[in-house]
Amino acid sequence: MELVTGGAGFIGSHLVDSLVDKGKKVRVIDNFSSGKMEFLSHHKSNIEIIRCDLLDFENVNKAMSGIETVHHMAANPDIRLGTEVTDTDLKQGTMATYNILEAMRVNGVKNISFASSSAIYGEAKEMPTSENYGPLLPISLYGASKIASETLITAWIGTFGGKAWIHRFANIVGPRGTHGVIFDFIHKLKKTPDRLEVLGDGFQEKSYMSVHDCVNSMLHLIEKTDNDVNLFNLGTGDTCSVRRIAEIVVEESKIENVKIEYTGGKRGWAGDVPKTFLNVDKLLRTGFEPTRMSEETIRDCAINLIDEIGLK
Amino acid sequence: MELVTGGAGFIGSHLVDSLVDKGKKVRVIDNFSSGKMEFLSHHKSNIEIIRCDLLDFENVNKAMSGIETVHHMAANPDIRLGTEVTDTDLKQGTMATYNILEAMRVNGVKNISFASSSAIYGEAKEMPTSENYGPLLPISLYGASKIASETLITAWIGTFGGKAWIHRFANIVGPRGTHGVIFDFIHKLKKTPDRLEVLGDGFQEKSYMSVHDCVNSMLHLIEKTDNDVNLFNLGTGDTCSVRRIAEIVVEESKIENVKIEYTGGKRGWAGDVPKTFLNVDKLLRTGFEPTRMSEETIRDCAINLIDEIGLK
Repeated sequence: MELVTGGAGFIGSHLVDSLVDKGKKVRVIDNFSSGKMEFLSHHKSNIEIIRCDLLDFENVNKAMSGIETVHHMAANPDIRLGTEVTDTDLKQGTMATYNILEAMRVNGVKNISFASSSAIYGEAKEMPTSENYGPLLPISLYGASKIASETLITAWIGTFGGKAWIHRFANIVGPRGTHGVIFDFIHKLKKTPDRLEVLGDGFQEKSYMSVHDCVNSMLHLIEKTDNDVNLFNLGTGDTCSVRRIAEIVVEESKIENVKIEYTGGKRGWAGDVPKTFLNVDKLLRTGFEPTRMSEETIRDCAINLIDEIGLK
Repeated sequence: MELVTGGAGFIGSHLVDSLVDKGKKVRVIDNFSSGKMEFLSHHKSNIEIIRCDLLDFENVNKAMSGIETVHHMAANPDIRLGTEVTDTDLKQGTMATYNILEAMRVNGVKNISFASSSAIYGEAKEMPTSENYGPLLPISLYGASKIASETLITAWIGTFGGKAWIHRFANIVGPRGTHGVIFDFIHKLKKTPDRLEVLGDGFQEKSYMSVHDCVNSMLHLIEKTDNDVNLFNLGTGDTCSVRRIAEIVVEESKIENVKIEYTGGKRGWAGDVPKTFLNVDKLLRTGFEPTRMSEETIRDCAINLIDEIGLK
């Protein structure tokens, strides 16, 4: 049985779909803070769902029984929230990961696949940024909690044994997205269809990967790599600017004469990294190829989310 | 006023001495889990001592009032303990650092100097290891908590402003040491003067810096560097093997015919890094030069600790 933490969330629920497609039995843990039952409602008997916060060690410990691999996807999905409630990422990121690892140790579970983030690189001086980049000086509390979790995992492996896959995600977008720039733009257009406010100067530039490619690459790496710690950037090898995203969302909204306005400044918010561009050569060398590059991914996602959110 | 967390501990108490020598008023927070009041008893009116665990946010918050710079030295000093009580470093490292930062934010304290560790580099492939080395894959829970703290600090600076000095320590040794290989060897010899058991094969090799050089280099860097985040390895630029340390301790013990025995294996314990060798070029370029290299530091420390512990 596979355990997916945050399995009712955006990326987690797509991962559950793929695991079930592969014939696996899946147990989901989710506190449903941003996850939704409807993301899993198409599944029948192949999955178990446990409503539980990862800070509740006793129930996490119970959920670990009979698990082969933990896919640890749960986290606070809203990077900006970390600036308001400053222990959000410490609790939902770092301390949650500790509980997972401790429950794995107690139950003899050996494999963990972890959703990390490009946010750990902070404002990297090397573009595209490879897995070996240092020093790691994240500027968001979210990024800090992702490194804290990565290193808890490597320390665990080093101390107690086991195997880990650490996936450093680019911006992941697609159906069921509950946060992020495309999601925000569509909600803004829904509220005020004549104008679209963009946080920052719009020159922020990031890599965007489709959630399907993300999930497929994670499972590909678990299958194809076999070190104690397997560390990979997941992304597309290109970038797209926030200005271009605004244009694409407006185009796909079919709303005419939308005025795009910029709040100015190089960041969208405190802790926003203006440019992230992941070097994905290591991923490509394993034989995985993304089906879509950043701009196509964004357009697909915009079309899907406009439909889900109901802009028209 | 300067705040020194762990100010009654080994390195912290030496730092208090130096700050007082420079005419600073010093407030110490310590839970006295390994710190000792006698390490501070020679000070009179220039220091305040607060007996408080850093997990007690309310008292940490009160202690932050009127502080210019926080010197965050407190941590679990026993790396091996992390393998037994697995949340030791999470609590005394990561969560304690969060409380410090949050109290700084609430009180408008802008400067933090943090005692990090070479343990963050894990089993680095680059020797000597520079500050830019990546990926950071620590193998001890202690190392994981040090990166977690470093990145909480950089995230805090990136999000809320302020200034940080992050010092990645080599093995620091000297008077008042309460842990570590020299300390252990002396206690073992005290118990069984005819033999000395060495954990591992003795070929473990690390950099050793005197606590005086450590404290002086920290204060030097705070004075001489002025970026938002100032990250430095602190060490001597050379190494010494555990075999050589065993010989030096036995020599200085003046006990004859001690049989040195090795438990074997490349590590002293799970999470022990067999070789650490910090590149300290960046420190040297600021004009700081250590007064002692590794072997001399170890001999000095052995002589001091033999006297403190009372081997004869």
